[in-house]
Amino acid sequence: MSDIQTYLDAHFAEALDDLKAFCRIPSVSTDPAFADGIADAADFVAERLKRAGFSAVELLVTGGHPAVFGEIVTDAALPTFLVYGHYDVQPSDPLEKWKTPPFEPDERDGRLYARGVSDDKGPLLIPILVAEAFMKTAGQLPVNLKVLIEGEEESGSPHFEATLQTYADRLACDLVISADGAMWRPDRPSITVASRGLVALEITIEGASKDLHSGRHGGSAPNPIGALASLLASLHGGDGRVSVDGFLDGTSPPDPTIIAAIEAADFDADAYYREIGSSKPDPIKSGRELLIRQWLEPTLEFNGISGGYQGKGTKTVIPSSASAKITCRLIAGQRPEHLIAVITRHLKARLPPGFTLDIHQHGPGSEAFFVDPKLPALEVAEAVLTELLGQKPLRVAMGATIPIGASFRKHLGKEAIFFSFSTSDEDYHAPNEFFRLANFRIGLTAWAMLLTRLGAAGA
Amino acid sequence: MSDIQTYLDAHFAEALDDLKAFCRIPSVSTDPAFADGIADAADFVAERLKRAGFSAVELLVTGGHPAVFGEIVTDAALPTFLVYGHYDVQPSDPLEKWKTPPFEPDERDGRLYARGVSDDKGPLLIPILVAEAFMKTAGQLPVNLKVLIEGEEESGSPHFEATLQTYADRLACDLVISADGAMWRPDRPSITVASRGLVALEITIEGASKDLHSGRHGGSAPNPIGALASLLASLHGGDGRVSVDGFLDGTSPPDPTIIAAIEAADFDADAYYREIGSSKPDPIKSGRELLIRQWLEPTLEFNGISGGYQGKGTKTVIPSSASAKITCRLIAGQRPEHLIAVITRHLKARLPPGFTLDIHQHGPGSEAFFVDPKLPALEVAEAVLTELLGQKPLRVAMGATIPIGASFRKHLGKEAIFFSFSTSDEDYHAPNEFFRLANFRIGLTAWAMLLTRLGAAGA
Repeated sequence: MSDIQTYLDAHFAEALDDLKAFCRIPSVSTDPAFADGIADAADFVAERLKRAGFSAVELLVTGGHPAVFGEIVTDAALPTFLVYGHYDVQPSDPLEKWKTPPFEPDERDGRLYARGVSDDKGPLLIPILVAEAFMKTAGQLPVNLKVLIEGEEESGSPHFEATLQTYADRLACDLVISADGAMWRPDRPSITVASRGLVALEITIEGASKDLHSGRHGGSAPNPIGALASLLASLHGGDGRVSVDGFLDGTSPPDPTIIAAIEAADFDADAYYREIGSSKPDPIKSGRELLIRQWLEPTLEFNGISGGYQGKGTKTVIPSSASAKITCRLIAGQRPEHLIAVITRHLKARLPPGFTLDIHQHGPGSEAFFVDPKLPALEVAEAVLTELLGQKPLRVAMGATIPIGASFRKHLGKEAIFFSFSTSDEDYHAPNEFFRLANFRIGLTAWAMLLTRLGAAGA
Repeated sequence: MSDIQTYLDAHFAEALDDLKAFCRIPSVSTDPAFADGIADAADFVAERLKRAGFSAVELLVTGGHPAVFGEIVTDAALPTFLVYGHYDVQPSDPLEKWKTPPFEPDERDGRLYARGVSDDKGPLLIPILVAEAFMKTAGQLPVNLKVLIEGEEESGSPHFEATLQTYADRLACDLVISADGAMWRPDRPSITVASRGLVALEITIEGASKDLHSGRHGGSAPNPIGALASLLASLHGGDGRVSVDGFLDGTSPPDPTIIAAIEAADFDADAYYREIGSSKPDPIKSGRELLIRQWLEPTLEFNGISGGYQGKGTKTVIPSSASAKITCRLIAGQRPEHLIAVITRHLKARLPPGFTLDIHQHGPGSEAFFVDPKLPALEVAEAVLTELLGQKPLRVAMGATIPIGASFRKHLGKEAIFFSFSTSDEDYHAPNEFFRLANFRIGLTAWAMLLTRLGAAGA
């Protein structure tokens, strides 16, 4: 380990340059305007893998954006680990809220600011750099290592399951280690053992076939913004929970071990609302309730709404249509297709006469995921973090979605653990995303320790 | 009259070229990006007035976009009429729905298509062209004529009242004749004797101080789109009417003579919904009820809504804010400032904890207007239309707002009549606005007859 650490320290400046170069590539996966950025980012990963000493590097055809594969085969007697990450990033709007441009990485106050630096370019680069360090020092890895870096995570990974199916033989492994999936808080080591699923949809209401003058037609023509507002308002109850019949079908009461972790966390709700800059909503009574809602309850959140005139000033128009983007976070037992069905039924039953309703699902969605709490690799990872950070990490759930756990289990028959060094306060779906450079360093050491111990322990 | 008609016929092609040149100028008043178009349109009107023989032509300073003034003094013994119009136009978005570009006038099927051609560039050009025809043929007008063409009508005329006050001496007249204010239907001559008032506002809801990841924060962070939807949904009752306490303060039951006109019109509600391309909303039971709602009841319409991610695909964000643009149409007795007060009270009382609310009023608003039914000039105008169109025009109300009537009465102490040759189906606040060229011709003849007869009758 000391050779590795010496190598990593000596080459940290180069590692940082690599990360900046990666972040200069605008690899937004949801917007076709960024097709070049996606292609460039996939090429960047492939080239970086080759340079690190990976073989069989290839852009896997997926039906959408390519996934990048590479492997280092050390010894058939050693266990094989498959590292997961994603090279695509969130859209960067609202652009005007960025202090420095999203695709021009800027280092300040011990942080690197750029779209995608925390989610997931920084975290995924770490295991590649660590593999290179092993190759340059020991000439080999302590394990067999494969990597699979996809390009559609921020679009709901629409082709990921098919990709796992198609390439199941090449991806065969003993365990998946995800470099995606942030630590919970900057001040408390944690390891993520559960994540919520995701369903994304867009609903569009149409009234008249064209925009109408709101003076001439006001009071007689159907107004789709009004109908949309009523439909959206019907989706939650006064307690802030989803009020769609059938939404909780298939779910069970929360896992008591996670509830116990929540109670141990002694979470400060007031501090949370200070941190996000809002006053406290009515239904949230305590930090305990807040974390239960974030980690263990499903949601239906409005991500965007649009209709009619949105420029400066005023325009006296009744628009012909209005639409809203929605994502739901799923807990164990909820199936994406069932949620779409019950939401559709709810909205159709409430659609007033004079309007048409279109419901479009973005991507297939994904179910919630739980790591097997008895997995030996989970204990190895915990031991590494305990040693490195000075306290035993909390086993936490996360509100966000990492659908890959369920997908790997389904298609490769293997478990996955999350071993990431981003932190969930790093604004990774907001302006001014950043990655703590101290965690970039710690992550390099931690991955080197993890691979060493997993190799010593066997699969 | 026959000399005038001969002149108008002989110069119709030039008149049409003038209108096209006018429509090429993108004079959108609500958007500062079109400042050049506003300046160019004001200059165009001033130059056209000078060429027609007007004197004292001047761009009046208003505090906002200039108003264009000009006059032809014929004889102090003759009555003086002040023509009103506006050179500014509505925004042209959604641009992708225009068959030909909004500021490249296109003649097809006996119509001229362009933003502003019907509202109000075509109608306002008519009296200027008619004045020129009198000057070129008889060498003088049968009346004294002043014109006042403003540049902020589509922005709610924020400086118009102050302008009337400042320039009251120069604008002194016996009667105002508005070239703005469309005929009701293409198949039925009408003269507008009432219009609804207008109040425009924008409401903005803020939750957290920045956009948040909807996975990590979903279920715990306030979602301003949800709060906005609930507030908007609370503004109307099940019958589609405004449900804000105090909204009807000061109003009286509808004028029975307008109700009688509505009953005479025998309006076909089914045909109306076919025409606008929607199915019939629940609360509207008949054509009579539809027209009562359009003409005689106040409204609160949503003109635009926006918040969060509006690009393609999906973005898992909880936005920090969401906003909606609203306009109300007022009936007699409603005061703009009182409506803002009761709407503000309604929204504040319903704002959930966790959010802040900002209410911004666009422009001062305007009260509803009714023409004095006994005005002699109204009967002259009706006689001209009856003679020219073969049937007596209906006296109709209009849902849209022409605030100038009330303003002229207040600041100049004079009545106003509406004498316009646009028709309210000409999509003037929507894509593909057009003006019927047959009505451009009829309008020229009608204005020549009107001025001749008003001159003969005295003020």
